[in-house]
Amino acid sequence: MRILIIGGGGFVGQKLARAIAERGSLRGTAVSHLALADIVGPEDIAAAFPVTTHTLDIAERDQVDAIIAQDWDVIYHLAAVVSAQAEADFVAGMRTNFFGTFNILEACRTRVEVPVLVYASSVASFSTDVPQPIQDWTATTPQTSYGTQKAIGELLLSDYTRRGFIDGRGVRLPTVVVRPGKPNAAASSFFSSIIREPLQGDPAMCPVDVEQEVWLASPRVTVENLVRVAEVESEAIGALRNFSLPGMTTTVGAMLKALETVAGENVIGLVDHERDPVIEKIVQGWSSTLLTDKADELGLIRDESFTRIIEEFIANDMRPADSA
Amino acid sequence: MRILIIGGGGFVGQKLARAIAERGSLRGTAVSHLALADIVGPEDIAAAFPVTTHTLDIAERDQVDAIIAQDWDVIYHLAAVVSAQAEADFVAGMRTNFFGTFNILEACRTRVEVPVLVYASSVASFSTDVPQPIQDWTATTPQTSYGTQKAIGELLLSDYTRRGFIDGRGVRLPTVVVRPGKPNAAASSFFSSIIREPLQGDPAMCPVDVEQEVWLASPRVTVENLVRVAEVESEAIGALRNFSLPGMTTTVGAMLKALETVAGENVIGLVDHERDPVIEKIVQGWSSTLLTDKADELGLIRDESFTRIIEEFIANDMRPADSA
Repeated sequence: MRILIIGGGGFVGQKLARAIAERGSLRGTAVSHLALADIVGPEDIAAAFPVTTHTLDIAERDQVDAIIAQDWDVIYHLAAVVSAQAEADFVAGMRTNFFGTFNILEACRTRVEVPVLVYASSVASFSTDVPQPIQDWTATTPQTSYGTQKAIGELLLSDYTRRGFIDGRGVRLPTVVVRPGKPNAAASSFFSSIIREPLQGDPAMCPVDVEQEVWLASPRVTVENLVRVAEVESEAIGALRNFSLPGMTTTVGAMLKALETVAGENVIGLVDHERDPVIEKIVQGWSSTLLTDKADELGLIRDESFTRIIEEFIANDMRPADSA
Repeated sequence: MRILIIGGGGFVGQKLARAIAERGSLRGTAVSHLALADIVGPEDIAAAFPVTTHTLDIAERDQVDAIIAQDWDVIYHLAAVVSAQAEADFVAGMRTNFFGTFNILEACRTRVEVPVLVYASSVASFSTDVPQPIQDWTATTPQTSYGTQKAIGELLLSDYTRRGFIDGRGVRLPTVVVRPGKPNAAASSFFSSIIREPLQGDPAMCPVDVEQEVWLASPRVTVENLVRVAEVESEAIGALRNFSLPGMTTTVGAMLKALETVAGENVIGLVDHERDPVIEKIVQGWSSTLLTDKADELGLIRDESFTRIIEEFIANDMRPADSA
């Protein structure tokens, strides 16, 4: 079992790599090689099988061809220019999210082996301009360029699968909270910051109204579902290759309330509120309630409570106090 | 009012050009120049204003840039590699339908003027894998590469409009019946052949069951709606820039019955029946019942009966008897 994670340097990619290292197998076969590729060389991870790291710009077709040529059984495509960045720099977003995804699919098409390709799409493919809740067969009518590029990747994945070039599975990730580390250029970044920074003793800014709803999943559930999505049989997925991963609907206010419950009043005091119209407009355009029939049928899992998500962050991902 | 029709050599493009010539104006302004561009130089048409014809391969970015640079107020993008051809030759379909559409949008993006861009998408963007009837907000889950490429064009058109690069209007055309002339490589071609050939005294082959349903519109209604779509105000369309044009649901059997009513038993005898599994599979994957709320709100029109469609073909498009 040879596995390639494109976007393997990112936070989800690294967690997925460690989960695979821990399991040692995927789709019933022992892992013989795990490769992590990203725009900046990913951090190595410890495993009982060989792990290699690669610098890869997916917008460069020859680079993509070279790495895909190494016969992978399962490829994860998690690489993307994130939402606020793709909105600020249209060309950069198209380059990576549109052409990068196309390059990966084309590299797979021209090979004899048909890899399982797990593609990370996003809840940002959907919008609030259509009847809610979102179903697996609701139109993707994204109101960001990032969401548009993700939705195009879904269509390509579906057609490349139908034609037998790949065995594709496109999954729309909820906003993943709590992300460890530093804020990034995703419009959703603050959903993690308002929990992470106060817990680590730093101030945080909340740029939206506390009534703002969000569709989210924990890192643990997201990674577990990415593993399960690769493991299910192709036939069980059927003709519609793209579907939403399970998430939970909550509000910024409820998230802060859970933070207070877990960590106390002093911690919550580190969160300031100042609306940012740019972030607010992007986030308001995202759906916060999705039905996930296909994912549920396939046995994917969901978070039970936001309190537990905070506790998991404290246990697994919080910055050690002495590095503050 | 300067108008460019890309795909202006095709049957719909030529009819649209003649309709514009007859009107003499669009969006309340007299037409000063109409340009017809196509992969093979289009036929000229008679008009009271200048008409030019151009050879254009939309997959060639420099050719697209050169023609788009000529400041058009309204651009129609009707050019495509059709369904059966895009299914048989994946690369050809991607080249024209995917990159060609991208090239047109990119050429518009890098200009100061924001043209009205009317994009011909297709009912083939939809499939029967989702709840019927299709609504304007049902997911495009195409089961052909042609439909996939059209649906990707829709997503791009929507995002380029949202960002202010174009004023885009993407319309999903029903199968247009009765097409004049010769059969083409569209999987839907036979829907016209089974009416056109017998009326012109030639044999025809029906490759599907007579119970097969189809969502269709006449050339007259299609062209009238393409004019109207260019005329409506951008704000009236709203955030969802892609929607279905009105059509009628009928069956192959009902179409043949109407042919018999209009033209008699002898004519119907020219239609032979032999199932073609390739054509059948494509056509069965298309939705035949669509709700067209947005189009109806915008004042677009629909056909009343298939009998009238046949009569219009006989009056306007039938090959003269002496050229048989």
